Formats: sequence, C-alpha cells, structure tokens
Amino acid sequence: MGADTVQHLAEAMERMPLVDHHVHGMLPDPSEADLLAALTQAEPPPKSAHVFDSAQGFALRRHCAPLLGLPPFASPDDYLAARRTLGSDEVARRLLRASGIAAYLVDDGHRPDLLMADERMARLAGAPTHRVARLETIAEAVLAQSASGAEFAERLEPALEAAAADAVGFKTVAAHRCGLDLDPSKPTAIELRSAADAWFAETAGHAASAHPAASARPRLTDPTIIRHLVWWTLERGAVLQVHAGFGDADLVLERANPARMQALVAATAGTGGRIAFLHCYPYVREAGWLAHVFPHVFLDVGLAVGFLGANADSVVRDALDLAPFSRVLFSTDAWGVPERVLLGARLWRDAAARVLGGHVEDHGWPIDEAIRVAEGIAWRNAEAVYVRAFVEA
Amino acid sequence: MGADTVQHLAEAMERMPLVDHHVHGMLPDPSEADLLAALTQAEPPPKSAHVFDSAQGFALRRHCAPLLGLPPFASPDDYLAARRTLGSDEVARRLLRASGIAAYLVDDGHRPDLLMADERMARLAGAPTHRVARLETIAEAVLAQSASGAEFAERLEPALEAAAADAVGFKTVAAHRCGLDLDPSKPTAIELRSAADAWFAETAGHAASAHPAASARPRLTDPTIIRHLVWWTLERGAVLQVHAGFGDADLVLERANPARMQALVAATAGTGGRIAFLHCYPYVREAGWLAHVFPHVFLDVGLAVGFLGANADSVVRDALDLAPFSRVLFSTDAWGVPERVLLGARLWRDAAARVLGGHVEDHGWPIDEAIRVAEGIAWRNAEAVYVRAFVEA
Amino acid sequence: MGADTVQHLAEAMERMPLVDHHVHGMLPDPSEADLLAALTQAEPPPKSAHVFDSAQGFALRRHCAPLLGLPPFASPDDYLAARRTLGSDEVARRLLRASGIAAYLVDDGHRPDLLMADERMARLAGAPTHRVARLETIAEAVLAQSASGAEFAERLEPALEAAAADAVGFKTVAAHRCGLDLDPSKPTAIELRSAADAWFAETAGHAASAHPAASARPRLTDPTIIRHLVWWTLERGAVLQVHAGFGDADLVLERANPARMQALVAATAGTGGRIAFLHCYPYVREAGWLAHVFPHVFLDVGLAVGFLGANADSVVRDALDLAPFSRVLFSTDAWGVPERVLLGARLWRDAAARVLGGHVEDHGWPIDEAIRVAEGIAWRNAEAVYVRAFVEA
Repeated sequence: MGADTVQHLAEAMERMPLVDHHVHGMLPDPSEADLLAALTQAEPPPKSAHVFDSAQGFALRRHCAPLLGLPPFASPDDYLAARRTLGSDEVARRLLRASGIAAYLVDDGHRPDLLMADERMARLAGAPTHRVARLETIAEAVLAQSASGAEFAERLEPALEAAAADAVGFKTVAAHRCGLDLDPSKPTAIELRSAADAWFAETAGHAASAHPAASARPRLTDPTIIRHLVWWTLERGAVLQVHAGFGDADLVLERANPARMQALVAATAGTGGRIAFLHCYPYVREAGWLAHVFPHVFLDVGLAVGFLGANADSVVRDALDLAPFSRVLFSTDAWGVPERVLLGARLWRDAAARVLGGHVEDHGWPIDEAIRVAEGIAWRNAEAVYVRAFVEA
Repeated sequence: MGADTVQHLAEAMERMPLVDHHVHGMLPDPSEADLLAALTQAEPPPKSAHVFDSAQGFALRRHCAPLLGLPPFASPDDYLAARRTLGSDEVARRLLRASGIAAYLVDDGHRPDLLMADERMARLAGAPTHRVARLETIAEAVLAQSASGAEFAERLEPALEAAAADAVGFKTVAAHRCGLDLDPSKPTAIELRSAADAWFAETAGHAASAHPAASARPRLTDPTIIRHLVWWTLERGAVLQVHAGFGDADLVLERANPARMQALVAATAGTGGRIAFLHCYPYVREAGWLAHVFPHVFLDVGLAVGFLGANADSVVRDALDLAPFSRVLFSTDAWGVPERVLLGARLWRDAAARVLGGHVEDHGWPIDEAIRVAEGIAWRNAEAVYVRAFVEA
Repeated sequence: MGADTVQHLAEAMERMPLVDHHVHGMLPDPSEADLLAALTQAEPPPKSAHVFDSAQGFALRRHCAPLLGLPPFASPDDYLAARRTLGSDEVARRLLRASGIAAYLVDDGHRPDLLMADERMARLAGAPTHRVARLETIAEAVLAQSASGAEFAERLEPALEAAAADAVGFKTVAAHRCGLDLDPSKPTAIELRSAADAWFAETAGHAASAHPAASARPRLTDPTIIRHLVWWTLERGAVLQVHAGFGDADLVLERANPARMQALVAATAGTGGRIAFLHCYPYVREAGWLAHVFPHVFLDVGLAVGFLGANADSVVRDALDLAPFSRVLFSTDAWGVPERVLLGARLWRDAAARVLGGHVEDHGWPIDEAIRVAEGIAWRNAEAVYVRAFVEA
C-alpha cells in the first residue's frame, strides 16, 4: 500500500479519542512490588526479570520508557529508577494522558480498598470517570449487613437500585465464581430466597468459626444468586459486562469460555439489556460468533491486547471475523498502574492500524471506511451501547 | 517473491474450476429482507447497516458490486437498488457464473419449500447440480407418513435407499440436533426400534395438541436414530457430510466441535465410508487433526471463508496444518442468495493464492506443487472422495 | 526491516545450539514402511503419496532432500532411493548433525524395543543423550513383576528411585491414558493401594484369559496411580513432562487440553517440582496462560512445529503470548527417524527468526534482546529448568 495511505490511517488512529469501557482504579503510590504484581495475573508475581521478560514487558519498555524520559527499551532497573525519581503521580499523569483515553468506565470491584478515589484518577488523567457497578460486590455488601437470608433477599433490590443510580453499567465475575455455564432460566423468588438462606447460613458458619478473615467478606459463588443478578441487570435494559477468558488463576479457564454462556445469552435476547463479553482470550472467535447470532451481544479483547504486546494484532483481527463491526468495543482492563492503561491504548491503536491498514492494502477497503470501523471500536460503539455521550465534541 | 510468480499463481487460481461440494438452493426472487436474512446466521437478522458493516458485508460490497455494474464498495443502498433494477434472475446469473464453480452438490435440507428447483439454479449458473440427501429430513418425512414407530423403522431403509439412488452423498445436522458427542456404537435393531417408538409417541403427542405447527414437521433430535443414520451411510461406503462448528444459534457451539465426534469417527474407520466435516470454525485445527489420524476424514472451511472476508486467509492456512492435502475440500455453504456463492468462491481463490503464494515465497514451494495442492482442494479431491467426475474435461 | 538486520538475526539463530528437551530414540534401520509410519500420527499410516503431500511432507522434501545430495523438493521416489543408497546410518548421521542439536533428552517410553541404544544415537548425532523416564512405563514394568497389588505398591517407590538415578526428568502420558482432567488431590497410601489392587486384579484377569497379548504388557490407565506418579515426581522437585494436545488417535483430543489439568497444576505449585507441557497444539494459548499464572509451568510447541511446516510460525508466535519468555522450551518430539529431528530443529530456527525478526521490525525489539529470547528457548531455559548444563562452553 502506498506509504501515504498507511501514514494517513495511522495518523487518524492517533487522533481518535478512546472510551475505555472497562478499567479499574489506580494504586495511589505503588511500590515496585505493587507494580510487578499489577503487571501480571500470577499470584505471587514472578520476579522482576520475569515480569519484564514477556510480551507485555517488552511492550512496556518500548512504549512507557520514553514517556518517562528514557530511551525505548531502557533496562528494567533504569525504568524503575526513573519511576521513583518522577514519583507515582507524575508517572500516572504522563501515562494516562498519553493514552488518549477520553473517558474511563471504572469497575471498582477488585480490591477497591487499595485504590485511589475516582476523582483523583480523573484529575491525573485529565478525563472523566464513570462507574461500573460490580454485581457480586454489591450482593456481598448486602449479605454482610443482613441478619438472615430473608433480609438479604429484601435488601438486595434497593441496593442494586442505589448502585444503578450512579452507574453506567454492571459487571459480573461469574467466570471466577461458578463458571459461565449457567442455567438459562430466571430464578424464581423462591429459588432466590432458598439460595440466599443457604449462603447466609454458610457465611454465618464461617463467621462463627475461629478464622476471622472468613467472615470479613462473604464471597458470592452461588450460581442461582448470580443468575438472578444477571437477569435483574438485563431486564432493566442495562449493560452487563461479563468477564470471559483468561484472568488470574482464580478462574477455571475452560469455564470462562463465553460459549459456555450460550443458553443464558439466548434466553435473555429479548430483555432489552446488552451483554458485553470482556477480553475473551483465547476464546475471541467464540465471543464473535455470539455477537453474530445474538443482537444484544458485544465483545472486547481488552486485557489480551495489553498482555500480548507484539502479537496483539491477532486478537484485534480475529475479533472482526463474525461480529458486526458495531458490536466490538475497546477496553484496557488496566488495574492499579497506569502502564497498563497506556499499553492497552497504545497497542490497540498500533494493532488496529496494522490490521485495518492490511485490509485497505490487501482487501481494497476504502480508507475512510477503515477509519469509520476504527472509530466505532474506539468510542462510538461504546456510546451507542451505553446510550451515553462520553466524548466531548 | 517475484511479482511474476505471484501473478502466475493468481492466474492459475483464477482459471481453476471449483466443485462446491456443499451448497444449498437459491431463493427464486428474494426480497431485501430475504437477502439480509440469508446473509447472516442471526435470527431475526440485524438491520441492513449491521449486515453490511461486517467482514462479509465489506467483502460483498467489494466483490459483488462490480458484477452488478457498480464501483467496488458502492453503498448498501446503491447495491440494493442495482439488485432491484437488474432483477434477481440476472443477479443470480451474473454472480453464479462469475464464481467459476463447475458443479454444485446441493443439500436441500434447509427450508427447501422456499428454494427454486435445482434445474433452474443449474440453468442460471450454467453448471450442473447434484443432490446431497439430508438424513434427518428423510427420517422426518418417513415419520410423518408412519402410523407407528414400527412402521417408521420398517419404512426408513427403503426411503434411504430411494434417496441414495439420485444422491452423491448424505448430510447430517447432528450438531444442531443433539451435538456431535455421539456414542460410538452402532445401534442394534432393538435400540433403533425403541427410539423410533419414543419419537413416534412424542410426535403423536404433539400432533394431538392444540399447536398445529408442532405436528407439521416432526423434528429429529434423538441421538440413537441419528447414529443409526450415520452408521447406515458409512457402512454403505458413501460420503457423510457433517456440519461442524458455527452456524445459527440453533446449535450449541461447543457441542459442534468435530473433536467431540472422535469416538464415533474412530469406530467407523473401517466401514469404507468417508466423513467430510463442513466449515468447522473455530475448530478448524481439531478437524485437521481428525483428518490426519483417520484415513476416512475430510474437511472444508466453507462457511467460514465467506463470512470472514478479509481474514479468510487464517482458516485456509490452518486447514493445511495437519490434514493431508488430499483431504481438504472446497465448499461455499451458500444458502438462498448468489452473493454467498460468489463470495465463497472469490474469497477462497484469493485466500488460497495468498496463503500458497506465501508458501512459495517464504518456504520454497515450487509453484507447480502449489498449483497442484490448490487444484486438489478446488475440485480433484472432491472427485476422489465422491468417486465421481464432476468437472468436464 | 533492513536486510542486514534480518540476516544478522538469522545467522545468530543458525549458530545457536539447541537442547531438544523431549525426543525419542531412532529406529536402527527403518524400512520405507517404517519411515512412513514414523512420519505420521495415523494408524495405519496413509500411503506414501499422502504422507509426502502434507505440510510436513513438503518441509521434508525441502529441507531433508539437499542433505541427501538431492535438489530441494526432489520427488518422494528419488528421496526414498537416495535414502536406500546412503544407508540409514549415514542418513541419520547427516540429518542429526545438521540439526545443530547439542543435547537430546530422550523419552524411551514409546516402543523402546524397536529403537537403537542411546549410545548409538549419540554417536551418530555427535551429541550426548540424557534419559527422561516415563512414569507409566516404570509402573507397568513393576506391575508385571509383582504378584499382588500390595507388592506393586511396595516395589513402586524403589523402582522410581532407581529410574531417577540416571534420569534428568520424568514424563507422563496421562493424556493418552485417562485424560488430563485429573483430580488435584494427592492420593493417600490407602487410595493408592486400593487402585493397585484393582489394577493387579484386572491385569491378572487378562493374563488368565485366552488372549496372550493382553498379559504381555499391562497398560496403566488408572487415574489414581497416575496422580500418585505426578505427585511423587513433583514433590521430589523434579521436572515432569506432560504430553498435551495432539498426538495419535490413542488420546481423546479434548481431554489432552492442558487447561483440563488446571486444578492439579494449582495444587502442586508449592512442591518445588516443575511441569513442562509438551506440544500443546491446538491448545498452545491455554498452555501459555498456565505458564503465566503458575510459577512452575513451562511449555513447548515441539511436535507441532515439525508437522505444521510452512505454518509453524503460528505456534512459535502464540507460545509467547502470555508465557514469560523463560518458560518456553524447545523440543522436536521426534520418534524413530532423523527426518523428524532435522525438521523440528530447522523449522523452529526458521520460524523463530521470522517471528522475532518481525518483532524487531514492527515492534522495535532490539536485535540483541530478540537473540536473548531465542537463546532462552533454544537451550538456556532448558538448562535452568533441568538445573543441568547440557551445552558445552
């Protein structure tokens, strides 16, 4: 393809605002250990050399180092030293702003106690944040405040409504808790109540036991309650984000395959709600098929793009196989450190420019159509699915 | 690679006749709604903009528009207008003939009531059609005419024989009906009779109910009867086409994985029959492995090539990973509209030229060997597996 | 990328020693039928034309023919004739030495009765061999010498210790025997004894039966005994090689997915032992995720590289998606014939040069970093995981 064409597409990608429709908060002052932990899904995280010696680590050295005033591929030691010298606020300011993300939809369900307030993140980033409410976290907070399963069942709905008041969407980690192979039927009030009683009894048993941490935070794994939360979200016409594919070892990989949720997806097609499968690796093609056959299904390849580094093209490309282009979204799924935000954005822009540039060159796509597809993924599709203007004109 | 080499390969691909070993009939005069429905596996189909804004839609605008006298990437509205002006027979004539398909093996099992007679399709295409008999459809017709399970069991064999008389092969949609994870054993006469009784009783129950459509067409989902049909086909030394991988939401994706059928495939290796897994996406590599280890297994990536558009190379490439080259076939799996025929053929030629051209350039394949591999997939392998001359000298 | 850069990387790849951490012995004087059988996972092997008409066959004609004094892509008949003329020792000498493999870790568990002594292979190859002990084979030999389950349980530990004395690691074919979806718990002594009793009784029953082959070699398929062997290996801090993904039809493909072993992998993370998933195709990405989240997991794409030929790049590339670079190993998984050794090495060098060269060109990787990653996979990671110097300075 003419170098001019590629250049034109790359420049258009560069100027494009992004809506990061699934991200987490940032650690206020991460230590080096925090940084390493946030850069991996392993627990405990591998040693520094191993974190940096990976596809993501190489991408970090390439793209983040220059934003800290270092040459590309500066050594990990030099990178960590520069980070210390600049201070974590300045690092966050530089990386978040360089990402070109115009709005963040923040799921604060993973270790919110460790993270800075959204307002501070917004200030550092120079871009607004919006809340995504995590369903399991809400239910767990309600249970902790309830004296019985009955009380839980009674208090759940108002708590969900309260969360909805300032949230643009909901998120479920069913993949981590019980797997995505959920029964499709909507639980009846009796089934919900029975599940609530069982969960309360189990948690009360833990609380009465010798292990104090057990009672500190009840953990929702009951598939009936989770199905109830899924149905509740979709029936109110909201967006349900569903973690799918890889993450940490807390999930069983095969049970995080979005195809496992097919029956429940089919059953909820008429609710008015939308389902956004997040990440999906290595099941991107399965998620794309669900988006093809069900009108309310969307997907992103967020987490994967940031980790895959030089091979991010593959998931960006495969996400377009079967999914209508309007059903593909952008996210970083960053947690804790701004490097992951920068990488998610930087790698997506580069991968999309290469993939769509190849389609222009090898498959005759008009360049303005390629840009239109990219803009949809970058931000317009998110505005359509969340029925909300995120990007200022 | 030298531009001459690529050009030579592309030209050889262009002249190559194709045997479309799995296709369906055409709608006689499709409305715009029919066209949109036929271009997607979604039910109901998405809006026009979403059908066209997809990998397949972009490929359609690129490749079909010029055959209707429009520039490449004409707008969907212009395309639909040109289609109306030309009339559906002229559109079919142009697209079918431009496909370069020399023979069509037609599975008429999906909504045959809506489709034109094969003779008319053959006339429009300027190429002969051959019949592929769908096993479930035959069994369902027999049941509808039977007054008991016993009568069904008695009439099934003659009906299958009658179908075989003018069919070049058989097709099963076990993936849609009960999944491919079938028990490997051949049902005994007693097991078949018992399953027939149960199916008859269930259908008779439906017929007696208030819902008239329920009895209109009994739907075979019983795995014992389906296994009987599979064994019957293979033991007579015929070709059994097996839908595998994606399709519409009527199938459970994971249960359409051809690897799920491994035990039954192994059990039938000595029958003399051949199994052709159709489409297989996203399980192309699994199907290729089955073709590698079992001497009677073939595969194609038909449906996927047409839908994936700019990414069709990936499935054309992966299909050659483990399968002996003689076991890979070509199909379009088009249904209803000639656009899908044209796209299946056009995208396959282009993808195969790119993939094999890359192997010539990067892996030293002699160009005549690359052409020989392509010719096998295009038509020679089909002639070998169906033991029939489809292409005129 | 500058042609100089590519050339520099390719030359560095060429000089790199390889540690083949998983290979089998060679047939002393293979007939043509032996050669064809060793070049496929099919049973019985397809005809000569079909073995050569495949991705692996084309790679063989390209890379092995010149080493036998023929032009690249010599015909199969010419290749077989040259092989006869040179004699199998000379062919082995040429191909093994051309592979550049500096050390072989030999699993002799598959038909060792047919294979030459390791010393002879080492002499032909001009490189040392090391032993990998196959757990199931050891257990089967112990059972054959035991007069009861109790005796088996008693003699097993000393036999394992004896094997360990001259082995650098252990191998399990659990994928072939019972699938990788093993219960994670370590069997108790009582559970092991009970399983041993049952296996002994079953084998004794076979031995007493009319079929003499049944007793010739007891076949271990009991998951409890296999889990015991897995735990025994890992708790002694050794390396456990786990066959994963495709192989011959003796395994159920889906049950050979390394992700199926997630629970057992998690349970053994603290043992001090390491797990190396072998081959993994088509589940390379799943294995990479396991290497990402678990500190004791490694992977290779050995068998796949040799078979995929022109498409080997895809698995070499995907193996680096999530796995820390220090967790990726090299193997050929060759069995019986030196062609497979040569192809495993040659195709890996070429694929790695292309993949890493692309990362240098498109993703800014410094060339010395690309070489460092390649050296890790080629041999340094193997030395680290086996805690053993294999390559002479």
